[in-house]
Amino acid sequence: MIGVGVVGYGYWGPNLVRNLCDLPEVQLRWICDLQTERLAGVRRRYPSVEITEDFQTLLADRQVDAIAIATPVATHYSLAMQALKAGKHVFVEKPLADSADKAQRLVEEAERRGLILAVDHTFIHTGAVRKMRDIVQSSLGQIYYYDSVRINLGLFQHDVNVIWDLAVHDLAIMDYVLPQKPIAVSATGMGHVEGEPENMAYLTLYFPGRMLAHIHVNWLAPVKVRRTLVGGSDKMIVYDDLEPSEKIKVYDKGITLSSPPARRGEKFRQMQIGYRTGDMSAPQLDMTEALSRELREFVAAIDKGIPPLADGQAGLRIVRMLEAATLSLSRQGAAVELQPERVPA
Amino acid sequence: MIGVGVVGYGYWGPNLVRNLCDLPEVQLRWICDLQTERLAGVRRRYPSVEITEDFQTLLADRQVDAIAIATPVATHYSLAMQALKAGKHVFVEKPLADSADKAQRLVEEAERRGLILAVDHTFIHTGAVRKMRDIVQSSLGQIYYYDSVRINLGLFQHDVNVIWDLAVHDLAIMDYVLPQKPIAVSATGMGHVEGEPENMAYLTLYFPGRMLAHIHVNWLAPVKVRRTLVGGSDKMIVYDDLEPSEKIKVYDKGITLSSPPARRGEKFRQMQIGYRTGDMSAPQLDMTEALSRELREFVAAIDKGIPPLADGQAGLRIVRMLEAATLSLSRQGAAVELQPERVPA
Amino acid sequence: MIGVGVVGYGYWGPNLVRNLCDLPEVQLRWICDLQTERLAGVRRRYPSVEITEDFQTLLADRQVDAIAIATPVATHYSLAMQALKAGKHVFVEKPLADSADKAQRLVEEAERRGLILAVDHTFIHTGAVRKMRDIVQSSLGQIYYYDSVRINLGLFQHDVNVIWDLAVHDLAIMDYVLPQKPIAVSATGMGHVEGEPENMAYLTLYFPGRMLAHIHVNWLAPVKVRRTLVGGSDKMIVYDDLEPSEKIKVYDKGITLSSPPARRGEKFRQMQIGYRTGDMSAPQLDMTEALSRELREFVAAIDKGIPPLADGQAGLRIVRMLEAATLSLSRQGAAVELQPERVPA
Amino acid sequence: MIGVGVVGYGYWGPNLVRNLCDLPEVQLRWICDLQTERLAGVRRRYPSVEITEDFQTLLADRQVDAIAIATPVATHYSLAMQALKAGKHVFVEKPLADSADKAQRLVEEAERRGLILAVDHTFIHTGAVRKMRDIVQSSLGQIYYYDSVRINLGLFQHDVNVIWDLAVHDLAIMDYVLPQKPIAVSATGMGHVEGEPENMAYLTLYFPGRMLAHIHVNWLAPVKVRRTLVGGSDKMIVYDDLEPSEKIKVYDKGITLSSPPARRGEKFRQMQIGYRTGDMSAPQLDMTEALSRELREFVAAIDKGIPPLADGQAGLRIVRMLEAATLSLSRQGAAVELQPERVPA
Repeated sequence: MIGVGVVGYGYWGPNLVRNLCDLPEVQLRWICDLQTERLAGVRRRYPSVEITEDFQTLLADRQVDAIAIATPVATHYSLAMQALKAGKHVFVEKPLADSADKAQRLVEEAERRGLILAVDHTFIHTGAVRKMRDIVQSSLGQIYYYDSVRINLGLFQHDVNVIWDLAVHDLAIMDYVLPQKPIAVSATGMGHVEGEPENMAYLTLYFPGRMLAHIHVNWLAPVKVRRTLVGGSDKMIVYDDLEPSEKIKVYDKGITLSSPPARRGEKFRQMQIGYRTGDMSAPQLDMTEALSRELREFVAAIDKGIPPLADGQAGLRIVRMLEAATLSLSRQGAAVELQPERVPA
Repeated sequence: MIGVGVVGYGYWGPNLVRNLCDLPEVQLRWICDLQTERLAGVRRRYPSVEITEDFQTLLADRQVDAIAIATPVATHYSLAMQALKAGKHVFVEKPLADSADKAQRLVEEAERRGLILAVDHTFIHTGAVRKMRDIVQSSLGQIYYYDSVRINLGLFQHDVNVIWDLAVHDLAIMDYVLPQKPIAVSATGMGHVEGEPENMAYLTLYFPGRMLAHIHVNWLAPVKVRRTLVGGSDKMIVYDDLEPSEKIKVYDKGITLSSPPARRGEKFRQMQIGYRTGDMSAPQLDMTEALSRELREFVAAIDKGIPPLADGQAGLRIVRMLEAATLSLSRQGAAVELQPERVPA
Repeated sequence: MIGVGVVGYGYWGPNLVRNLCDLPEVQLRWICDLQTERLAGVRRRYPSVEITEDFQTLLADRQVDAIAIATPVATHYSLAMQALKAGKHVFVEKPLADSADKAQRLVEEAERRGLILAVDHTFIHTGAVRKMRDIVQSSLGQIYYYDSVRINLGLFQHDVNVIWDLAVHDLAIMDYVLPQKPIAVSATGMGHVEGEPENMAYLTLYFPGRMLAHIHVNWLAPVKVRRTLVGGSDKMIVYDDLEPSEKIKVYDKGITLSSPPARRGEKFRQMQIGYRTGDMSAPQLDMTEALSRELREFVAAIDKGIPPLADGQAGLRIVRMLEAATLSLSRQGAAVELQPERVPA
Repeated sequence: MIGVGVVGYGYWGPNLVRNLCDLPEVQLRWICDLQTERLAGVRRRYPSVEITEDFQTLLADRQVDAIAIATPVATHYSLAMQALKAGKHVFVEKPLADSADKAQRLVEEAERRGLILAVDHTFIHTGAVRKMRDIVQSSLGQIYYYDSVRINLGLFQHDVNVIWDLAVHDLAIMDYVLPQKPIAVSATGMGHVEGEPENMAYLTLYFPGRMLAHIHVNWLAPVKVRRTLVGGSDKMIVYDDLEPSEKIKVYDKGITLSSPPARRGEKFRQMQIGYRTGDMSAPQLDMTEALSRELREFVAAIDKGIPPLADGQAGLRIVRMLEAATLSLSRQGAAVELQPERVPA
């Protein structure tokens, strides 16, 4: 039995609580939130769970083995570091921290203490994204581009811009799906409310070779779009997360190159570029709730010491990209290099 | 009766010919193309039209009042300039020329001689784009952004990159729809075939104030998308050219700002950002074929001396953006300023 | 405070329980189910609610004012009648009973005792259906037809055919939305599994005047469709329940009639039938969860003695249609007349 | 070289003319129409084709080998019979005639004279329908149902009801795709304009065994739908003709039957019905214009004496269904038996 405390009961916390309650190997002991009015309904719904405003209570409870953090981004580092120092395993909502430096320190602290540090990159636990990874790595051939759009009329965050709020999902998915890692990022964007962070942004990620990634995020769009294209030399994928069941479509399409016979008026060296359009197929997907799978994996990681899919290193890579993108935003889109990933211990 | 000659009978030329034949005030006299095999079927289908490989024949025919050019981009300048110098009115397929300098010289030549110079920015003659312009200028309030995606598995051009082939449409539409003009452009892209121009690109256009435009074009996409979003302070538009009838949707959506009462733990100055979601409506559109309307307008311009909607100046503005975007491409996305528009004579 | 007991904790019961727990004026006292393994998780989640296998316990509890029934259709009559006779208000999952005769007896029993009898016609409490009713009754002009499709790969029921399982929703919506009542029904269908009820069916409902309704239901379809068309002389509606937000679209379309001038070869009396196509609009909808609204209305009905929207009479009308449709099925689609509705007491 | 005359230059005739002109083995000699104003533009566009108001001229021209008929349905029999008696091969727009009796006489006349009688069942020549036939006959297993919807705001015909205008397409497709033939048909419908034929209708077709077909046609619908579902024991198909490229989708879905272990409270004999949901795939389709393929096939049939895909027998089968459906309409939906098909000579 693993004792767990949850800190933060705003938008995401209730999902953590609901899923943790359904895990037989978990005893949810505490829910902690500063806004006590949020906790009113909790007692009624989960009478066996204790509630508190004081995070120290969770740290002090020796039956708490792990702490799940679902608080504003600016508080992730402090809460996670306190939890690690108190010897607790940590599960942090994305992004891991609000700077690469802090994320790095969390990674190091967890490694030093032999504790599990997991980041809640929810989407990589969906059947759709896992299937996309399989296909990208087995069937796409050379990867040409990754293009993602994540827009809707959404909640404006005050503490982070739209990149930290929405693009974080695309970066986490991309990091998981692609074999390559980006070497630089540029970003442009705009804030339409005085004094508030950017509510729309475009990110370009540069990779070694002839590959490019691009992400469009927007809190102020009239329609909801969640669509990713991955183009390869052999096949191409469309991942549309709003499709109820056929979220992944694989297109047997591409270009073909051939040397044509010389023709009057054409240069000799020009390749002839043709088309190949074949079948489309939509593989069946595992529809298990991602968060449920993810929390089971976190519990198994604690139990068996196996690092989770989205460990601190993954969280750190994503925070580095977010930080670089925000720096590029402030430099009118100038490309910012990404530091090479630290070799895992 | 206006005598017309058409030069270029490849992809677009047959559409010009078909529409010109249907105009009662036009006598189509010549079709000219270097590839004579293309002209074989023409005699059969339009027995009253003469065909030739020699462009000079059209220039020399005194009954030819106007020349329509549908040849590769690199030849536009030379053919149009010859036509103007021979005293002919000119209708050129987009883009007007392959450099801003040449486009400028065509504009000047036409002005000097009092001849009509029209550019075939087809889309601005559709019912959808004209309706979009009306709504943008009457109902959107302050314009926040313009975002367009034009992708599909398309013909790779050898002589121009995807920006000159596809983004030219978006730039022409944007130029027509928005009251503002961009001041700088940056572009990133990639070519996936050795020795060939870029087949995918992302353009960002910078405007005075808090406004941004972005265009995504790609010849190597698994699905066809033709979708433009225009966000404003009062309303937002989705223009989906692939919808059979409801191409324009107007969303009564946006954000609202209010000063909230001070709350524990929140900074005083923070505005509260709320949402407004109202009805959506799709106005009925005029479905007349754009090219037919456009050619009638060209004929009327010749007849009455009224400049057409897409005159040489419009063509020049678009070529400047294309040129600047291509320069930015070669500079890894560095922003390139657009020269202020020359004041029309 | 109204004491409530729920009987049946299979597919729908948990939704009743969750929503009842959220109503401050309700004290959920009992959950009753014969399959005790279903109740295992209940104790954990709702420790304050008692669980039992014995329905009599609920009847005997004087603090139980109302009973909500979510059991198989065949048991509705017996449980509801026992509850009414014990002086409890009753909320029954659709359909009210498995025969019109039993439904009639429940209606009479409730009226005799002055108890609320509500039927869970969930959809009529959605924002979409309520908006559709407003538009149908205010703007459609003369109603021409009502056409609904409700198909998917769905759970095969053993105890009722697809009409009692799926068409019941369409009939309840239609009954609520249209001002007219049908006078006869015919149905054809097919069962593809030996010994099991029909898994696909087509219903036609006849109305006075030039109006027709048609319902297509199917448990064995490759795609999910939930779409209703309502055609009127002035406007037409498409209600697509799978659309995330624009579920109701109103089309300003129709035909126009005029007497044309006599033409050679045409009969004199023939009217000229033209078209009118105007704007489409999608009104904003109230997105409150229907079941929550419905249960609040049930509680208010008990409290104030106001009959609910879907009272016993509505439930009875729907059961009469279901019974007549099933009779028609067994007669190869022969039309079966519907008895005129009994005048409410 | 095959000499052809076309009679009828209204909606469909121009398509016949355009496609016939493109066939090198055809010499289009005549276009005949009673409404001379329609023929004004023809001379301009096809100067080598003669035009006439007098059908006898075509019959008398010994260089006319075949006559293509695109006139109102009521005239098909008379024109086709005259043509056959004059020794001409005949290509008739659908439906073959306005009664089964007349259709039968045309079939007999053509057989007696050894002439080709082809019916323009256009859709069976599309890549989509041919692919659907292949899949239905190779992969669907036992066929459970065929369901088709063909609705839009369409031209009201004065001379035929919506069944003869629209359902004729579905019946022709169904006749081609399914191995089985229907044994009876019932139809209900409604006309909303006084004195005019039915503008909406629902057809049910009964087959031997557990199979059912259903067709919904409507000239007065707010949206255009062209969708067919075919359900089988092994796979299911959705054919959506409005999809630009993925018109045919094959779903590896269905039900599974197993004998479950006896459970408390369940009857012993009840089968357990489970689900199977696998991949979806959309095969690549041949996008050749159907009418072009069809006319080439007609010419080849004349040339080589091979009967065309849609010969007189196919035309007759469809007319029998149309006639039976109309009879059922007039009998409030009573099922009308279809005569068994005459054995081809």
